[in-house]
Amino acid sequence: MTFTPTGWSPEEKQIVDEILQRAYQQEISLVINHVRQTVINLTQIDELWQVHDFLSAKRYDLDGKYDTRESMLVFTLAQLVKENSIKLQDLDGLEKDKLAKISSLAKV
Amino acid sequence: MTFTPTGWSPEEKQIVDEILQRAYQQEISLVINHVRQTVINLTQIDELWQVHDFLSAKRYDLDGKYDTRESMLVFTLAQLVKENSIKLQDLDGLEKDKLAKISSLAKV
Repeated sequence: MTFTPTGWSPEEKQIVDEILQRAYQQEISLVINHVRQTVINLTQIDELWQVHDFLSAKRYDLDGKYDTRESMLVFTLAQLVKENSIKLQDLDGLEKDKLAKISSLAKV
Repeated sequence: MTFTPTGWSPEEKQIVDEILQRAYQQEISLVINHVRQTVINLTQIDELWQVHDFLSAKRYDLDGKYDTRESMLVFTLAQLVKENSIKLQDLDGLEKDKLAKISSLAKV
């Protein structure tokens, strides 16, 4: 699939900024709560190393996932739709062309 | 300092096995409790990444520290004495020559 960036208006940028902030905060809360619950209940060092592995993977994932460069925004949003972190309806206000691309990429 | 391994008797091995087991369990408990306390109180993702960094360092440290190869035991024990995880008196029963080397290395 080829994708030609068409630029983002200030209104679109504001919609995207807000939705990304919300999704990021939500994901962080889930990660913190998951680690908290796991650590409260563990008794063995191997279980703690599993938490370490989880954090390594999550940190790497989060570092790359919320890419706010304009040329990457469609991919960033598509990934979040794919993971059910956001819904297409949350993006009402974006150009139809962009919404179609996000929707299409989210299925890959 | 040069060190020539002189071999470990079964009695010495048993003393060392027990003290290493105890020190390892004690250190693991400290690590688990530290992480538990930290995670219970944190609210920011950066604080969680600090826990991740701590676990990365601790895992690396623990992987190397409890080296039970006979040729390394004097160094393993010296490091634990240096860190106050064990005391020289805990090693009563080892050859005087080994105790002297452990005591000397623990000061480095």
